[in-house]
Amino acid sequence: MKKILVIGSGAIGCFFASKIAKETDLTMLWRNDYQHVIDHGIKIISDKSETVFFPKIINNLKQYQEQCDYAIIATKVLPSINLIEIIKELKYLPKNIVLIQNGIHIEKEIYKNFPQCSLISALAFIAVSKVSCGIFEHFAYGRLTLGNFPTGLNQDCLDLITLFKTNNIEAKASEKIEEDRWKKLIWNASFNPISVLTGGSDTKKLLDNKNCKELLQKIMKEIIELSCQDGYNLNSDLINKNIEDTLQMRPYKTSMLLDFEAHRPMEVEAIVGNALNFAKSKSIPTPYLSTIYALLSCY
Amino acid sequence: MKKILVIGSGAIGCFFASKIAKETDLTMLWRNDYQHVIDHGIKIISDKSETVFFPKIINNLKQYQEQCDYAIIATKVLPSINLIEIIKELKYLPKNIVLIQNGIHIEKEIYKNFPQCSLISALAFIAVSKVSCGIFEHFAYGRLTLGNFPTGLNQDCLDLITLFKTNNIEAKASEKIEEDRWKKLIWNASFNPISVLTGGSDTKKLLDNKNCKELLQKIMKEIIELSCQDGYNLNSDLINKNIEDTLQMRPYKTSMLLDFEAHRPMEVEAIVGNALNFAKSKSIPTPYLSTIYALLSCY
Repeated sequence: MKKILVIGSGAIGCFFASKIAKETDLTMLWRNDYQHVIDHGIKIISDKSETVFFPKIINNLKQYQEQCDYAIIATKVLPSINLIEIIKELKYLPKNIVLIQNGIHIEKEIYKNFPQCSLISALAFIAVSKVSCGIFEHFAYGRLTLGNFPTGLNQDCLDLITLFKTNNIEAKASEKIEEDRWKKLIWNASFNPISVLTGGSDTKKLLDNKNCKELLQKIMKEIIELSCQDGYNLNSDLINKNIEDTLQMRPYKTSMLLDFEAHRPMEVEAIVGNALNFAKSKSIPTPYLSTIYALLSCY
Repeated sequence: MKKILVIGSGAIGCFFASKIAKETDLTMLWRNDYQHVIDHGIKIISDKSETVFFPKIINNLKQYQEQCDYAIIATKVLPSINLIEIIKELKYLPKNIVLIQNGIHIEKEIYKNFPQCSLISALAFIAVSKVSCGIFEHFAYGRLTLGNFPTGLNQDCLDLITLFKTNNIEAKASEKIEEDRWKKLIWNASFNPISVLTGGSDTKKLLDNKNCKELLQKIMKEIIELSCQDGYNLNSDLINKNIEDTLQMRPYKTSMLLDFEAHRPMEVEAIVGNALNFAKSKSIPTPYLSTIYALLSCY
């Protein structure tokens, strides 16, 4: 039985943990209200079904005295969260560090600091949110894309993919996970910031406005150009595909908008800042992305 | 004694009317709460002094049965306000139509529709706002720049300038009023939208943020480029001048931010939309201005 430690007990971490709880030796770090979760478990509400599971709960990483096979990190990517320091609290470094997180260029620091661990980078395509302590509602999707950083797929990564797959998660293997990160960023770097900067708009409102739809497309174009300069092969057809796919979805509030409305910090650096830093390092002009970033930096 | 009719009884209209009330035959259009103003007059609070004046008040333009020398229009420039229709309600067209309004390219329609009138275009540099019905507080400045549209200065325009000057208004004559409109737009098109789009920031907060300050400068640069393509001769030194002058002011909320916070319509078209329409007509790229406009168009 694989030993799994989940750091980041938000909606993403809890949803994916719920799927593999039965088949693994699962421990979750839960800093606040952990007694409530020990007593009542973690509940996932999805369609009309409810699942409750009771992983081992720790409220301090020092309590974890084993070497885990996979440390799954599902925190937000925020300047206030120093993952290097968090992982260093562990008595034994994990065999694999798994990042299920948003953004671009988020792996490098961890890769450099923990050469002993193999690093798996993962993207979650899911709509799930917290209802109250230990209770999460899952609305749509639930896919994962996983691959080793910087490239390839080792056996541990393939085993993790199999683990998710056998537990009804559509888990896709990626030999080029950074390319997939850029691909996901096309949507994230456009819809997320604009949903906030237009005073709080869902996807339908953004796409119903002609000027706004054009702006979304222009930001997508900049992201695609950056990804090409980063050595990946994304095609501009992805702009229309992202727009068309979003039009098929029911009106949807982005995660950044939900964070904004709840007065939580937003993942601006991971989603926009890192792309912009790359653009600057290569002297690539990105007026649309720069504007969005400057405006968000005042919030 | 000059016959003056003021249309637009907001802070701008009332402030400038207050200065010339004694020396003119002054009538003001006041659609709402006009009985209150008839009874109590219009009060301007400035520093520690207060002025109350009692102009003739009408609540319908059809009540005005004379030909005025100057119809001073001091409404906001909003798509919902059709000035052509408003002026057509008058029994006699005014000798001069005076626009004390924000924005760029706002004169052409009036110029075409009323060739019998001479058109005076004016810019107000002033910080004044409404306190309650008929009461306005004046914080700073109070300058006017006036000139005939499209260019030049006729005798009526010079007489109006003299009228303001003799009543302690620093009124400047402009032979090229459209150039002055572009010049004022450098500040208006940058600070106004960004103060709203950053969630409500005063001038100090905007300039304290490095990214935001750069964005202000980039928008100013686009406005200067547009003005040059429109045949005017604005220099890029004006960017620094606008920034430096604003740093000298005490922290200040833009008029667009005040409108936004009060849930009033914002002058987006006059201040940003018209500049952008001009850019499109000349195929001049304006990514920063376009982004700002697209975001504001969702509000």
